[in-house]
Amino acid sequence: MSFTYQRLNKDDVALLMVDHQAGLLSLARDFSPDDFKNNVLALADIAKFFDIPTILTTSFEDGPNGPMVPELKEAFPNAPYIARPGQINAWDNQDFVDAIKATGKKQLLIAGVVTEVCVAFPVLSALEEGYEVFVVTDASGTFNQTTRDAAWDRMSQAGAQLMTWFAVGGELHRDWRNDIEGFGGLLASHLPAYSNLMQSYAQQASS
Amino acid sequence: MSFTYQRLNKDDVALLMVDHQAGLLSLARDFSPDDFKNNVLALADIAKFFDIPTILTTSFEDGPNGPMVPELKEAFPNAPYIARPGQINAWDNQDFVDAIKATGKKQLLIAGVVTEVCVAFPVLSALEEGYEVFVVTDASGTFNQTTRDAAWDRMSQAGAQLMTWFAVGGELHRDWRNDIEGFGGLLASHLPAYSNLMQSYAQQASS
Amino acid sequence: MSFTYQRLNKDDVALLMVDHQAGLLSLARDFSPDDFKNNVLALADIAKFFDIPTILTTSFEDGPNGPMVPELKEAFPNAPYIARPGQINAWDNQDFVDAIKATGKKQLLIAGVVTEVCVAFPVLSALEEGYEVFVVTDASGTFNQTTRDAAWDRMSQAGAQLMTWFAVGGELHRDWRNDIEGFGGLLASHLPAYSNLMQSYAQQASS
Amino acid sequence: MSFTYQRLNKDDVALLMVDHQAGLLSLARDFSPDDFKNNVLALADIAKFFDIPTILTTSFEDGPNGPMVPELKEAFPNAPYIARPGQINAWDNQDFVDAIKATGKKQLLIAGVVTEVCVAFPVLSALEEGYEVFVVTDASGTFNQTTRDAAWDRMSQAGAQLMTWFAVGGELHRDWRNDIEGFGGLLASHLPAYSNLMQSYAQQASS
Amino acid sequence: MSFTYQRLNKDDVALLMVDHQAGLLSLARDFSPDDFKNNVLALADIAKFFDIPTILTTSFEDGPNGPMVPELKEAFPNAPYIARPGQINAWDNQDFVDAIKATGKKQLLIAGVVTEVCVAFPVLSALEEGYEVFVVTDASGTFNQTTRDAAWDRMSQAGAQLMTWFAVGGELHRDWRNDIEGFGGLLASHLPAYSNLMQSYAQQASS
Amino acid sequence: MSFTYQRLNKDDVALLMVDHQAGLLSLARDFSPDDFKNNVLALADIAKFFDIPTILTTSFEDGPNGPMVPELKEAFPNAPYIARPGQINAWDNQDFVDAIKATGKKQLLIAGVVTEVCVAFPVLSALEEGYEVFVVTDASGTFNQTTRDAAWDRMSQAGAQLMTWFAVGGELHRDWRNDIEGFGGLLASHLPAYSNLMQSYAQQASS
Amino acid sequence: MSFTYQRLNKDDVALLMVDHQAGLLSLARDFSPDDFKNNVLALADIAKFFDIPTILTTSFEDGPNGPMVPELKEAFPNAPYIARPGQINAWDNQDFVDAIKATGKKQLLIAGVVTEVCVAFPVLSALEEGYEVFVVTDASGTFNQTTRDAAWDRMSQAGAQLMTWFAVGGELHRDWRNDIEGFGGLLASHLPAYSNLMQSYAQQASS
Amino acid sequence: MSFTYQRLNKDDVALLMVDHQAGLLSLARDFSPDDFKNNVLALADIAKFFDIPTILTTSFEDGPNGPMVPELKEAFPNAPYIARPGQINAWDNQDFVDAIKATGKKQLLIAGVVTEVCVAFPVLSALEEGYEVFVVTDASGTFNQTTRDAAWDRMSQAGAQLMTWFAVGGELHRDWRNDIEGFGGLLASHLPAYSNLMQSYAQQASS
Repeated sequence: MSFTYQRLNKDDVALLMVDHQAGLLSLARDFSPDDFKNNVLALADIAKFFDIPTILTTSFEDGPNGPMVPELKEAFPNAPYIARPGQINAWDNQDFVDAIKATGKKQLLIAGVVTEVCVAFPVLSALEEGYEVFVVTDASGTFNQTTRDAAWDRMSQAGAQLMTWFAVGGELHRDWRNDIEGFGGLLASHLPAYSNLMQSYAQQASS
Repeated sequence: MSFTYQRLNKDDVALLMVDHQAGLLSLARDFSPDDFKNNVLALADIAKFFDIPTILTTSFEDGPNGPMVPELKEAFPNAPYIARPGQINAWDNQDFVDAIKATGKKQLLIAGVVTEVCVAFPVLSALEEGYEVFVVTDASGTFNQTTRDAAWDRMSQAGAQLMTWFAVGGELHRDWRNDIEGFGGLLASHLPAYSNLMQSYAQQASS
Repeated sequence: MSFTYQRLNKDDVALLMVDHQAGLLSLARDFSPDDFKNNVLALADIAKFFDIPTILTTSFEDGPNGPMVPELKEAFPNAPYIARPGQINAWDNQDFVDAIKATGKKQLLIAGVVTEVCVAFPVLSALEEGYEVFVVTDASGTFNQTTRDAAWDRMSQAGAQLMTWFAVGGELHRDWRNDIEGFGGLLASHLPAYSNLMQSYAQQASS
Repeated sequence: MSFTYQRLNKDDVALLMVDHQAGLLSLARDFSPDDFKNNVLALADIAKFFDIPTILTTSFEDGPNGPMVPELKEAFPNAPYIARPGQINAWDNQDFVDAIKATGKKQLLIAGVVTEVCVAFPVLSALEEGYEVFVVTDASGTFNQTTRDAAWDRMSQAGAQLMTWFAVGGELHRDWRNDIEGFGGLLASHLPAYSNLMQSYAQQASS
Repeated sequence: MSFTYQRLNKDDVALLMVDHQAGLLSLARDFSPDDFKNNVLALADIAKFFDIPTILTTSFEDGPNGPMVPELKEAFPNAPYIARPGQINAWDNQDFVDAIKATGKKQLLIAGVVTEVCVAFPVLSALEEGYEVFVVTDASGTFNQTTRDAAWDRMSQAGAQLMTWFAVGGELHRDWRNDIEGFGGLLASHLPAYSNLMQSYAQQASS
Repeated sequence: MSFTYQRLNKDDVALLMVDHQAGLLSLARDFSPDDFKNNVLALADIAKFFDIPTILTTSFEDGPNGPMVPELKEAFPNAPYIARPGQINAWDNQDFVDAIKATGKKQLLIAGVVTEVCVAFPVLSALEEGYEVFVVTDASGTFNQTTRDAAWDRMSQAGAQLMTWFAVGGELHRDWRNDIEGFGGLLASHLPAYSNLMQSYAQQASS
Repeated sequence: MSFTYQRLNKDDVALLMVDHQAGLLSLARDFSPDDFKNNVLALADIAKFFDIPTILTTSFEDGPNGPMVPELKEAFPNAPYIARPGQINAWDNQDFVDAIKATGKKQLLIAGVVTEVCVAFPVLSALEEGYEVFVVTDASGTFNQTTRDAAWDRMSQAGAQLMTWFAVGGELHRDWRNDIEGFGGLLASHLPAYSNLMQSYAQQASS
Repeated sequence: MSFTYQRLNKDDVALLMVDHQAGLLSLARDFSPDDFKNNVLALADIAKFFDIPTILTTSFEDGPNGPMVPELKEAFPNAPYIARPGQINAWDNQDFVDAIKATGKKQLLIAGVVTEVCVAFPVLSALEEGYEVFVVTDASGTFNQTTRDAAWDRMSQAGAQLMTWFAVGGELHRDWRNDIEGFGGLLASHLPAYSNLMQSYAQQASS
């Protein structure tokens, strides 16, 4: 059986951010709040760094689900922003699908809250449509680890690839010679442990 | 390889509740008792909300296994109730299989105690018969996490889809515009964290 | 060194419920939401069962902290309800302290959200005033286990006794002959595992 | 501050086994069932090995709490057996206290189910009476780890010493020269890892 | 894609117990020693109960690996016993393979220590030979959970089915009417939690 | 025994930040890097908010231990900064002790890396000198949880109080009426879960 | 479906050690530092023992990522050593691929830091090229367990086999008769628990 | 209440290594084998570095308990070595106590296997004799975490101080100016994470 490496390519990929809303975030407890916030913002920074077309969507943001995280709105001021009137699976919303098709991309990065619904449903729909689908697992949160395990299994068995924001960044960047300062700064700002390495190095270099 | 999204459809699905009996429940220790009880009753409420044909079955309920959880009996007063005379795999009981066939559905939600026996065996039998099978993982309990991991793997590799009651509810509901009050109330009554969101919202809305 | 058993006595005790508010509850992640809700309501039922004078207090309930959990309000319709205008340590609020003194009790059960602030501060103040203080640990929640560990240590070293709602109920009840039906029903309604025992027993008894 | 080592002495100690009943054991989930059963029986074997006066007590054994574990009854056929008519704290039962006093011992080993009630209450009462109290923590079980932590803290702060059955055995035995075969056999039968050592040694010795 | 349920059938199955030796057992730390011993002996009892042909094998039992667990030797006094002179993968030993073939069975239950070597290697060899292979995961032990996870994944992806001794027993028994006393006794002797259920039931039945 | 509540008072307290250096931080693994960074910076923000005299110290910052975290240096540009020439216990450095005495405060908040050395040693020295000592446990990191547990126990038994940055903030602030905007903003910037509450509230308030 | 056992063969295999650099190692927190160091060196010793062609590669070793672990450099003084000028996926570096091809092997063992990037990317590339790929999971480290789980899933679903160094050693050695002293010594030096067995055996043998 | 800092002083301290024997070590499972071996050897290196008088003792080393770890014997060739003929509490052996008294020290570091027996018993005896006692917790191992927690509590409540080898080293060294190379080398050889820091620093320094 031959295997084809579906490899993220910055020219082929779009990012879907699904239901990262203030209320819903209080349901996500499989990460510490600090870790999760950092992961979501790191993914957003990666999308901006590589100019990845990004689509935002929310569910009932005027009700208890609450507004989209303001940092995301600010990060993508010109992104298509689909406030869904009721569809739980964002893929059931034609505007959302149209926005994706308008990007012309064949690879989709998907993250959201909660994982087994807001992420898994569009993941499965996109796979059925023939897209290469990459779940950004650590920018997707849910009630607890058991729920996460079940959701990951369903998506993985369907053919989605499970990644994390750091792996996404590395696969897109390909070669540090494309940009050391920019990409290094991005990593340092979201990885305190890497930032520490850089500070130790910088101090010694300057002494 | 093309992928087909086997998507839960409220018109195509039946629910099988297997051996949620008072004695057997004392064996299930991969969830806290409160969490597990809540998950089982939430699944029952979903079945009622969507009018899903439901089949109850028990094993030796006059012996140490004990009676079916009374809330389930009350929830489905008219459901087929098969007290199996000895078959461990409920699918070996012709009445049980006949009851399933009588529903005319092709999708099966299965939950039970204990996961690797009372759930896994009928799951594998149903897959062999060509059904689309969805394991409601968090309404299924067993001795410990190691046993659960093995059981999930066996079912997943055979083609069953691992879900949780919340994902089941979301995939069946499809669109909030079908019913906001009812489905929201169902969620709130089984998700304290979501209920809190609704209370905060309601208070502010009324102020 | 002689030891005196400070033993809960239903005639000597008052209960303080501090800041169980819808918003603040979303911060409490050292318990699953189902477990925590069950613990809080079990404690309320115990207070009602033993006619324990109960005092409710909240912090900024018109803002993001949200309203007190409605079940608590309903459980204690006539209890003193002190909506504090700003004091973080409820003991700094004279109305709160007056309400406690008005009960004439020398033993205090304290539970709240979050443990290291809303519980620990009045616990330490009450100890300083000479009260016997019992922390209801599982009806008190906070951000994570590390924070809880630190808070428990501070209170325990100061002389507070760490209990759980079930231990509180048992120590207050003293003897099942005082009331089997009532207290047994209370336990069954909050302990699914105990409820299962009772159902198995009841079925067999009736057969 | 001088410290006195309260050291278990086989001539000074009595054992209290509180409420190890079939039904109640289903509530104890801070140990795996195999581990817990082994711990309880190991403690019983230690008491028999050192001829420790042992007192058994149960609570409502004709109801859902169920009968005492049969192995315990068989291990101590002549031990005082107090089926309490209702007292939750066994120390409130005069027969129980009389049986303890009749032993003439000043050190008490206490184990039971559930830890924060059936163990902690008599532990605190015994401390108040001036006994040296040793909790056999791993032969005492309860709902979950959080409850256990609170119960251990309350007892430890009151002056009880937290031990495990293996430590109890070692402190009582004092010197292997008192009996190698017997005590070694006891350990091997309850410690599979120690039994493995002995088998490897024995095979090599015989080769 | 059609799925065939490879279902354990007592007439089609043989059991391979690989390297459960006293020394090697000290390496297995992904289970508590009590739990692991219980699991291994439960599997042995199942094989005896169903008259499953069983093959024992060891590696270097005269050296530090130590002798086979004596209970296993005693359980299967007439079983083929292959003390391998050096082959790490038991399947590389012709006597072992011949013994398997001599059983004429097409289904193999395999358990051993350590999981990723003594179990995984013959599992993969047997799959290549066309056998239906069932790993008894909880009667197989290894260094830690990470090692176990990797070993399970390798075997599962190759087509082995991950089970536990309880699931094996249930799938072989098929129907309680075949033997209630015998199989129930087997379960009770290895499942303290089930034994408790039976004791409560028996007491009440006799009252 | 009467108890005196040693309560943090913003006029009586100084903060000691010990060895939060880029290299040493890579040793601290009892928190996720994001959580730990957030905790340290939250503590710094609290000190600035309440104008708490703060003293920074480092150990061998020109070597592998690396420079102090730059955010801390920037937060306290005018704070005494003692680069210790070799003393492991900062209290052995006269400049450090002099700086503390110069503040005239009797309460000390201490945080650092690693907990059992850089925090515990000056904590014990300060207690001996008669200070009231508060360990900021979540702004102090070390190799693993076992090491942390031992260190906490040593400090707690000596009389130090274990707190977290959130509890420190609450105990210092005393009353929200002193400053709602400022203190609320501080919390929101370090507690994503609290920030979510505020965003939901704000959106609704503005709608 | 027939299954072919891709079995490690010492004549067919090469080892790739990717980015085990001093700085990057501080990012790997899914193992304790002692365990991880031991795993990496054990893998190196296995490669030397079986004369496995080994290829070392690093990323930016003059910057904060730091130098390759010195023990690895010393272990393979003549191995191809590719300091990549920027490629994140080592397979994008032609020298690296050429070095692999020069070995003429068809099986690749791959380990590195961090798992989801430095390991997963070349693993997927190698699979696409038709190699049989074996991930040495415990000699590969990353930020946390969640990231590891996602990375393992991606590689496993693509067809890579997940192993550990001990399994690699056993599968390569095949038969203890090839070399007892050497391979036993290798295991003992990296498995303290196995070393203990050997010491007990040796002492008894010599007595 | 005034507090006196009992501070380790290299001129006042002796080290007791109790029962670190090959067989007994297989019982210690609250640490990974690599971590535990490293901790024990690190403590030995500290004793040698500071010329701490060290006393070794074993229990039945000719039987299944096995010989003392050879590295310890080699580390202290001239240390008193007391092979106890049967006493479980080493303090009951007069030779052992005499050896301690002969050192003339008042501070005792104690480590051993298993914690609740071989460590706790002499710890309590030494406290009774008036020694200042420091338990080296991470060079002491036992069956599981629950047993450890109970043992730590008993010793801590009696007045022993819980430390780890790293804290012991730091408290003894006092000031890096006493010896940078030697002590730094000791740390690096037992702390891979610290060693990585030093390698990164050294490479940069040399470039």
